[in-house]
Amino acid sequence: MKKLIIVKIGGKVLDDAPQLDRLLDDFTSLAGGKVLVHGGGKAATEIAARLGIASQMVDGRRITDAPMLNVAVMVYGGLMNKQIVAKLQARGQKALGLTGADLDLIRAHKRPVKTIDYGFVGDIAAVDAGELQALLTRETVPVFAPLTHDGQGQLLNTNADTIASAVATAASRHFQVSLVYCFEKAGVLLDPEDEASVIPHLNPETYAAHKIGGVIVAGMIPKLDNAFDALRQGVYRVYICHARALAALASPSFIGTEIAL
Amino acid sequence: MKKLIIVKIGGKVLDDAPQLDRLLDDFTSLAGGKVLVHGGGKAATEIAARLGIASQMVDGRRITDAPMLNVAVMVYGGLMNKQIVAKLQARGQKALGLTGADLDLIRAHKRPVKTIDYGFVGDIAAVDAGELQALLTRETVPVFAPLTHDGQGQLLNTNADTIASAVATAASRHFQVSLVYCFEKAGVLLDPEDEASVIPHLNPETYAAHKIGGVIVAGMIPKLDNAFDALRQGVYRVYICHARALAALASPSFIGTEIAL
Repeated sequence: MKKLIIVKIGGKVLDDAPQLDRLLDDFTSLAGGKVLVHGGGKAATEIAARLGIASQMVDGRRITDAPMLNVAVMVYGGLMNKQIVAKLQARGQKALGLTGADLDLIRAHKRPVKTIDYGFVGDIAAVDAGELQALLTRETVPVFAPLTHDGQGQLLNTNADTIASAVATAASRHFQVSLVYCFEKAGVLLDPEDEASVIPHLNPETYAAHKIGGVIVAGMIPKLDNAFDALRQGVYRVYICHARALAALASPSFIGTEIAL
Repeated sequence: MKKLIIVKIGGKVLDDAPQLDRLLDDFTSLAGGKVLVHGGGKAATEIAARLGIASQMVDGRRITDAPMLNVAVMVYGGLMNKQIVAKLQARGQKALGLTGADLDLIRAHKRPVKTIDYGFVGDIAAVDAGELQALLTRETVPVFAPLTHDGQGQLLNTNADTIASAVATAASRHFQVSLVYCFEKAGVLLDPEDEASVIPHLNPETYAAHKIGGVIVAGMIPKLDNAFDALRQGVYRVYICHARALAALASPSFIGTEIAL
């Protein structure tokens, strides 16, 4: 099976041009098939504010009303996605900017209203693994914005971590997939205040033990549950690391948390 | 040679949701390979105004400074492009939203400064006909926003008419290409005030005669020169018509101007 690396980058990297440039250099240096998934960053909130659109938050989660969805489509699907594509092209990468609507790659359901109406937020229903494979066969480097569609003409906002794991799971039918979550910390930390306390390896047993011991902080739990789900569905390895660790991914000097079953 | 229809739609259609929906229905009804190229519409000017970015115009042409380029990338490359893609997907079309940066499909040079500095405006240098053919072979429906790149990481604003004719010219190596410019009039008119005065056919001789007679208005001349250039470079037919005429393109009831050598 051919190898495929799926890299998710988040807000902090996107908000800092030199850091983004370095990340894209490192991403370019990775051998073999690859996919980039990017999150939002501060730009959408800032553009929304300048447009006089208030960000509604409930329990730390953004509510995507119609004006905010338009901002997300403009900023994530337009500005960020196409700037990353142009920068990757300058590095000789055959980048293709995508949302889930393009080629019907990621179809989602608008999240049902229970206690909270999240608005135009999509929960992923299906990833077209065949289309994805066809792109990768042509050495295309897909760059996903955190947007999907419902198949009936409605674009939807979808969490970038979720897009990354859904794409990784679908691609694992055709590839040996490594899924890398780049974020602002060096990895999963034993002590959240100490960047040197990275847990180098996690499996279901050590994860459970750390959870019981209260070592793993609450914010990491959904990310890790997500990682183990992806592994159970066929993804080969999941890594959680700082963006600067990406270039060393395959080497012994890699700093970050490697997650396996 | 397989047939390919390239349809360019402009501002007026994009600004009117019911008209856009009908255009997309008609576009969907066209048989064979097809490409959609969309222009700007009023949304970019409106978003720019709301963001406090002034539109600079010189001789009726917009100057694309850095903030205005960002608006173009957000609105053309993001909002409009992805909304059209989602709407085409809802009609069962395998739409893929693109800028010239994606897959390095359209590379451009930043326009050199002579008397006027147009800013981040790109004059097309090359269209990758091979990549385009590869997409069309897979029954993809490319949807182009009026944006290109310089290959060094810089996105550029490029006139949608020019993108349509450059894509048509490149595609004519592999396809029998019909290029359709949809706009707000019924075609090239003998009397600009009379929608019933459509000139049904134009060739270089009748075009020259109409120009000498002062029949063809100044605004149409660049569009028509562009059309004849495309024909000389291998495009099979060029049509200038109202968006509502698109569905009847191949039929005797078609109303519009057909241009051939």
